Amino acid sequence: MFKFDIINKYNGDNMTKIPSRGMRDILPKSMELRNYLLDKIKFVYQSFGFNQIETPCIEHIENLTSGQGADNEKLIFKILKRGEKLEESMNSNDIVDSGLRYDLTLPLARFYANNMNELPSPFRAFQYGHVWRAERPQKGRFRQIMQVDIDILGEKDVIAEIELLLATTSFFKELGLKDFKILINSRLILKKAIQYSNMDLSIMDSILISLDKLDKIGNEKVRQELLDLNIKEDSIDKYLTLYEIKDYEEFCRKIDLDIDIKNNFNKIIEVLEKVQGVKLVFDPSLVRGMGYYTGVIFEIKTSMFDFSIAGGGRYDKMIEKFTNCEVNAVGISIGFERLAMSLEELNFEYKSSVEKLAIIIDKDINQKSLEEVMLNAMTLRSEGKIVKVIYKNKNYRFQLDNLEKEGYKIYE
Amino acid sequence: MFKFDIINKYNGDNMTKIPSRGMRDILPKSMELRNYLLDKIKFVYQSFGFNQIETPCIEHIENLTSGQGADNEKLIFKILKRGEKLEESMNSNDIVDSGLRYDLTLPLARFYANNMNELPSPFRAFQYGHVWRAERPQKGRFRQIMQVDIDILGEKDVIAEIELLLATTSFFKELGLKDFKILINSRLILKKAIQYSNMDLSIMDSILISLDKLDKIGNEKVRQELLDLNIKEDSIDKYLTLYEIKDYEEFCRKIDLDIDIKNNFNKIIEVLEKVQGVKLVFDPSLVRGMGYYTGVIFEIKTSMFDFSIAGGGRYDKMIEKFTNCEVNAVGISIGFERLAMSLEELNFEYKSSVEKLAIIIDKDINQKSLEEVMLNAMTLRSEGKIVKVIYKNKNYRFQLDNLEKEGYKIYE
Repeated sequence: MFKFDIINKYNGDNMTKIPSRGMRDILPKSMELRNYLLDKIKFVYQSFGFNQIETPCIEHIENLTSGQGADNEKLIFKILKRGEKLEESMNSNDIVDSGLRYDLTLPLARFYANNMNELPSPFRAFQYGHVWRAERPQKGRFRQIMQVDIDILGEKDVIAEIELLLATTSFFKELGLKDFKILINSRLILKKAIQYSNMDLSIMDSILISLDKLDKIGNEKVRQELLDLNIKEDSIDKYLTLYEIKDYEEFCRKIDLDIDIKNNFNKIIEVLEKVQGVKLVFDPSLVRGMGYYTGVIFEIKTSMFDFSIAGGGRYDKMIEKFTNCEVNAVGISIGFERLAMSLEELNFEYKSSVEKLAIIIDKDINQKSLEEVMLNAMTLRSEGKIVKVIYKNKNYRFQLDNLEKEGYKIYE
Repeated sequence: MFKFDIINKYNGDNMTKIPSRGMRDILPKSMELRNYLLDKIKFVYQSFGFNQIETPCIEHIENLTSGQGADNEKLIFKILKRGEKLEESMNSNDIVDSGLRYDLTLPLARFYANNMNELPSPFRAFQYGHVWRAERPQKGRFRQIMQVDIDILGEKDVIAEIELLLATTSFFKELGLKDFKILINSRLILKKAIQYSNMDLSIMDSILISLDKLDKIGNEKVRQELLDLNIKEDSIDKYLTLYEIKDYEEFCRKIDLDIDIKNNFNKIIEVLEKVQGVKLVFDPSLVRGMGYYTGVIFEIKTSMFDFSIAGGGRYDKMIEKFTNCEVNAVGISIGFERLAMSLEELNFEYKSSVEKLAIIIDKDINQKSLEEVMLNAMTLRSEGKIVKVIYKNKNYRFQLDNLEKEGYKIYE
């Protein structure tokens, strides 16, 4: 498992052996599982024609602080401008010109704007990489996170949502996860509901922050929060009564949802059920934190875990901030860190059928025998086996026990 | 190919679409080659029993500036301390507590010290990841670099050097590279040569910086640099005459090299030649930049490229800075970036035999047909094919051309 920086520090000559605050070392066993997951993810999305790309970890500070990152913008690791001398009246903006990315979506938008002439259209992008957020470290929460994102850029039809959700559920199925359902909603539905309740669209983001908590804090507390936003009581009543309706058809009828939006919704729901056997559930109070979503939003759940294993949605307005022309976009992010950690805690079994052999040699082996051993080891490796050549320890019993724990057989 | 930040900027609403200074976007074609290389590297080192690990990209500033990184320490990207307010008399040390790692060796030493009780001994470590150096950007030189390092920790015998060099040359052979030779030398030989010439060991690092340039700037300029170090002329004469000897045996006899060092050297040379058919060449003026090396040092060359494709050596004194007890260590670093870039320029051929199919559908496809197409696509994918379902464009000819360029066949 992972290491924390709360455990005892030890310094030899000013050197600190525990990781920097909120960071962790990843040991071989965890690494193997993470690689297994990443390889599977790569393989599945590749089979759907997604192309892997990479964006730099360091991003312009003006991009990172442009309002696309919501609360993540408060958690940026800022990088000191090179060669800048500190002066009295400086503030941090004077000495910072870049920072570490807090997600992969903003860099993808910049990437697409920068390279669109060389990319297929629509572009199916797959990327994974580290992102950094200076959150308060706690158990299972780190400041360096592996993010896995899949996006389709330049497709306005729901076929983008469909292919993304088919690919993502294919990965989870391949992994052996079961009983999933997809919660689905749309920013357009959220907007219509606000209009229906005669509330002010200009404070939509604040209203949604409260609505998002409906499940957790309940009707009365949400009511209080909405009152604090100076919303009239009868509007709040209308809004909260609306959210007692769980039936999709009835909800849509109430808010008088456009037929196009409904048709698109149904298309996604039906194809996913028919092709993949996955149930989509309309969740009118699903919000998802990021303000950049413009259409369908979704989260994937499994009965095995109490968190969403993936989530995403359509964000048709972000890329034009870089390009000045609209580029449709739908993306999904896999909850890689929580998934990996939970599978590790469950001692998730995955096959690693390669034979591991240890060739143990004596300290006083002569040159000719050493060469023969090494040649033999090379032959065994070329047959697909994992082989390490090591010296016999003084405590041979202990050495054998440890090799066995690592899964090695002794080659004789 | 890669993008540079010298090309024209375009801003929409303060957003910058080109990467941050010295950074680059990696496009699908480059990414494919890089993944191919990394997969092959992983596979080969795994077959030698190396375990992959990961260290955080952010490292304590006191570790990064401890003198282990030589000139790289001048190139650190420093990260602003969180929540620190700037005050008048502050300097950058007051507002910085971490930075981006400039290599993978120092983090490995910290990692090993922090986790050694949970790791096998000797520990065969394989890691790859980004490192950052704020060098002046120029063609083919970036500030974010993929580094690939392989190390054996806790083994004092030359079997560590042998296994490392066998594994690394196996990777290069698998890749199809030919005609390589390994240049080999030892810090102990470099030291003996300085003693033999009656020069002062306390300025060893400065002397070696000059010696390192012997090939490039020639005898006379090196002589001048050594004179500038206030070294006596007869010492310099003795030193430079010594380096005219290219014969290994004669060189060793001159400096009266310990028999143990010579035996170890011969062991490496002979096993590598017998087992792998690779020629090792003694290069008495091979220095390698890092001050932390304590024993054998080496570089791997191929006649295909004019740069070293890998390099490394033994550094037995670094880990004890974290642990206070000696831990032997040998490491090698693959020149991943230059290798990837050079192979790309050569249009390096590697097989990607998976069939790619595009299923083109009409805009007005009905729900039932869409479901059938999607089911069919899933079947083709499960057969190992890459399939994307896309709408027919208005400019169908153009669309077909582009799909063909991407390697897609049209599924009918």
